[in-house]
Amino acid sequence: MRIPILKLHQYLLISIQVELDDQTALQFQEDLLNKIHVEGSLGVVIDLTSVDMIDSFIAKVLGDVVDMSSLMGAKVVLTGIQPAVAITLIDMGITLDDVQTALDLEQGLTKLQQELEG
Amino acid sequence: MRIPILKLHQYLLISIQVELDDQTALQFQEDLLNKIHVEGSLGVVIDLTSVDMIDSFIAKVLGDVVDMSSLMGAKVVLTGIQPAVAITLIDMGITLDDVQTALDLEQGLTKLQQELEG
Repeated sequence: MRIPILKLHQYLLISIQVELDDQTALQFQEDLLNKIHVEGSLGVVIDLTSVDMIDSFIAKVLGDVVDMSSLMGAKVVLTGIQPAVAITLIDMGITLDDVQTALDLEQGLTKLQQELEG
Repeated sequence: MRIPILKLHQYLLISIQVELDDQTALQFQEDLLNKIHVEGSLGVVIDLTSVDMIDSFIAKVLGDVVDMSSLMGAKVVLTGIQPAVAITLIDMGITLDDVQTALDLEQGLTKLQQELEG
């Protein structure tokens, strides 16, 4: 299955509401980069509110997506990271250092707007 | 599988990017009404850009979703209906009479904003 990507003005919005298996995550990576290319998007918000658990592979794919999007010229904000996910990530030593985060979709969009204007 | 529903301010955004089977459509109906209730949403945009084909059952479910949401106090706009889908709907005698439509997600949101302010 594919994760839907919504285009809203110059941004792309994604809400991940399924358990991410490896194949879905890689397909998402490809779909998102293609969509950034086609739409010429300046920013991306990936909302993880509904994601309960994340493993090291998925964390790496997410980190890669952020770096790849950045190379293509689109800023990415991750939003809604749950406590359990944050704990797992840090326990695994994954800090997603350069990744912007926000509490929810609205605040993610606001953050993007501020960065792009600033 | 479930169709992701994104909350953005007082609106809900849905982009249907899978083929809708009967079960998925009914699950979506239930999920959307619950989400309207929980979030107190004033408007909903359902984007059908990626839907190539629609049958009479799915058309009925979509029409019902609009009526049910309206009863609950949320306006619904359908966006991105493809030519083939529009042809099929009219050929089947389904006109979705009272349903607001718009070209894409952005215009759907604009339409909702105008209606809610007007």
